[in-house]
Amino acid sequence: MFEARLVQGSLLKKVLESIKDLVTDANFDCSQNGFALQAMDSSHVSLVALLLRNDGFEHYRCDRPMTMGMNLTNMSKMLKCAGNDDIITMKADDAGDVVTFMFESPEQDKISDFELKLMDIDSEHLGIPDTEYAATVKMPSAEFQRICRDLSSIGDTVTISVSKDGVKFSTTGDIGQANITCRQNTSVDKEEQTVIELQEPVTLTFALRYLNSFTKATPLAPTVQLQMSKELPVVVQYLIADMGYVRYYLAPKIEDEETAGEA
Amino acid sequence: MFEARLVQGSLLKKVLESIKDLVTDANFDCSQNGFALQAMDSSHVSLVALLLRNDGFEHYRCDRPMTMGMNLTNMSKMLKCAGNDDIITMKADDAGDVVTFMFESPEQDKISDFELKLMDIDSEHLGIPDTEYAATVKMPSAEFQRICRDLSSIGDTVTISVSKDGVKFSTTGDIGQANITCRQNTSVDKEEQTVIELQEPVTLTFALRYLNSFTKATPLAPTVQLQMSKELPVVVQYLIADMGYVRYYLAPKIEDEETAGEA
Amino acid sequence: MFEARLVQGSLLKKVLESIKDLVTDANFDCSQNGFALQAMDSSHVSLVALLLRNDGFEHYRCDRPMTMGMNLTNMSKMLKCAGNDDIITMKADDAGDVVTFMFESPEQDKISDFELKLMDIDSEHLGIPDTEYAATVKMPSAEFQRICRDLSSIGDTVTISVSKDGVKFSTTGDIGQANITCRQNTSVDKEEQTVIELQEPVTLTFALRYLNSFTKATPLAPTVQLQMSKELPVVVQYLIADMGYVRYYLAPKIEDEETAGEA
Repeated sequence: MFEARLVQGSLLKKVLESIKDLVTDANFDCSQNGFALQAMDSSHVSLVALLLRNDGFEHYRCDRPMTMGMNLTNMSKMLKCAGNDDIITMKADDAGDVVTFMFESPEQDKISDFELKLMDIDSEHLGIPDTEYAATVKMPSAEFQRICRDLSSIGDTVTISVSKDGVKFSTTGDIGQANITCRQNTSVDKEEQTVIELQEPVTLTFALRYLNSFTKATPLAPTVQLQMSKELPVVVQYLIADMGYVRYYLAPKIEDEETAGEA
Repeated sequence: MFEARLVQGSLLKKVLESIKDLVTDANFDCSQNGFALQAMDSSHVSLVALLLRNDGFEHYRCDRPMTMGMNLTNMSKMLKCAGNDDIITMKADDAGDVVTFMFESPEQDKISDFELKLMDIDSEHLGIPDTEYAATVKMPSAEFQRICRDLSSIGDTVTISVSKDGVKFSTTGDIGQANITCRQNTSVDKEEQTVIELQEPVTLTFALRYLNSFTKATPLAPTVQLQMSKELPVVVQYLIADMGYVRYYLAPKIEDEETAGEA
Repeated sequence: MFEARLVQGSLLKKVLESIKDLVTDANFDCSQNGFALQAMDSSHVSLVALLLRNDGFEHYRCDRPMTMGMNLTNMSKMLKCAGNDDIITMKADDAGDVVTFMFESPEQDKISDFELKLMDIDSEHLGIPDTEYAATVKMPSAEFQRICRDLSSIGDTVTISVSKDGVKFSTTGDIGQANITCRQNTSVDKEEQTVIELQEPVTLTFALRYLNSFTKATPLAPTVQLQMSKELPVVVQYLIADMGYVRYYLAPKIEDEETAGEA
């Protein structure tokens, strides 16, 4: 038996909005430790990993580890029926073929239960090695979202260059080119700041299309963290209150010149 | 001669929004008592009835009963040109082929008159018998709208069950099923409450598509009233300030099982 | 070398929104006096003229007159990437083939530069004679926008009649007709007023489609000015703070009757 009660139900709604455009069907892994998901996007280019730790739930019970395959479009349809102030409880029997989402309004005068059919989904679990990254950028998540969207109107890819002074986002397209630089900002009067931790400068190029999908997680957290090392996938992380995270991984584009130089 | 002046002109705009998706062409019946309409929706499944009583108008004059056939899409185009604070006056000559809508801005510095061509429309007037209903539910109109919209994302029909404790809305679809229960709520601190008057419990099933059309009347009133009896059409009523109502009638779906049981 | 720094960068964004639907490619004329544009719309029916005087910029330098041909759709894509509080600087070399837009956030923690490719565009500069107009109407720009939009739902053309009491906008269509009259309004408590200066009454008819395009300039100014004389194009003018204007010229439609009467 699995049962998890989340007082701040809107978090679960936002989590789903952050992954449903990237992944259609996915297995959620429930264990004593929490509620997790790892999935490739449908074009098998990027990876999303979600963790909601057990201690973030008001009540959490998972008698034995279980995997629940869900269509995220349908799950999203149901979660959209929860009010933003509702308490959400997820329930499933060990051998059942449905998961139940219960929504309770704050005044307890409206109680809804939505039963979603489970699916069998093939999936392989990738091990993600713990890595020291050459550069870590923390910046306002809304700023990162705005930059990815703005550059998409000019080009298809973005080159991100991190130095100790700031992070530069560049693109080129048919109509011209664009550079946006965010400087390290440690003024105290701004709540969300751009902070850079650097082992060595890094420059990587990514497809904007995927970064734009990742920024669907913006409502989850005021800050986004980018971790980058040469030739490694970037990790784009949004923390979920005190209970977990959504992380996205995307491999950099290999430039022809670089390939030539390294051959 | 017909002439009716409505200081709160936005009411007439909202009335039209509440019926124009359901009915394309309709006859308005003007009499000494007021301004009324009764019409089947274009698929002849549901019925809408509107009444604006003469005493709700600042000025009301109707020398002899007259019927004005209007295309509601065109009427809506004209009423959308009225400001929300405008005073609206309707005028028509006894033998004329147009109706004039006059809009006056509150400061009287903008005066508009819109002349709509009238049409000949065949219509029959249905007698609606006064009935004692087994169950009457009053609930916040925004809540009813939300429930109908939410359930439409899961299924096509809704089963409404009224008991003394509350009203339950249920649906089933390909992706799963859903139940939403609103409990009777008599706490004093909420303005809009769910109140149930019950002769006997009732359970009826309706096409969500029509209920969703009915909820276009939500801006007219904070409360909606559902009246239900076994095998009878539900009456969904929105009161219009102190001057009348919009009522919708929709026959329940007959389940195969019920039919079999009753045969 | 051309360089112009505009502290209120949002003005330039609004200017572009006000002309980009009417004109696709256009030459901007930079001189010591300011930054200007004159262009026919793509159907060669209306004319738009823009002026931003040098003294409206915080910094302005133009070593020699130059013409920069830009695709306004692409220019708009870039300017949309500027924040509403950003400072915008335009830069171009005398013999260059690009113009650079630099955006600085108020806190100087985000600096963007966007480079737009220039184009060669054929254009002829029309002389617009200074004229005394028979009627000048100043009215709230939002009101004028609303009237043009509202009348478009009824008909294709608008007849504007100016008398000393007010200005009347009329249209006729398949579904009926409409007249909207704005009275001269000199009450002190309203900020935006309708004020009429009249040599002689004027009545002219225009295509609503173009007037609706002109009202894209509404965010630029609280007041619009219409100048009209018999058989002459109307001038629709929006002032840009203290630094210039956007003006639109549109020839009146010649009615068959009028033509006959004047032949």
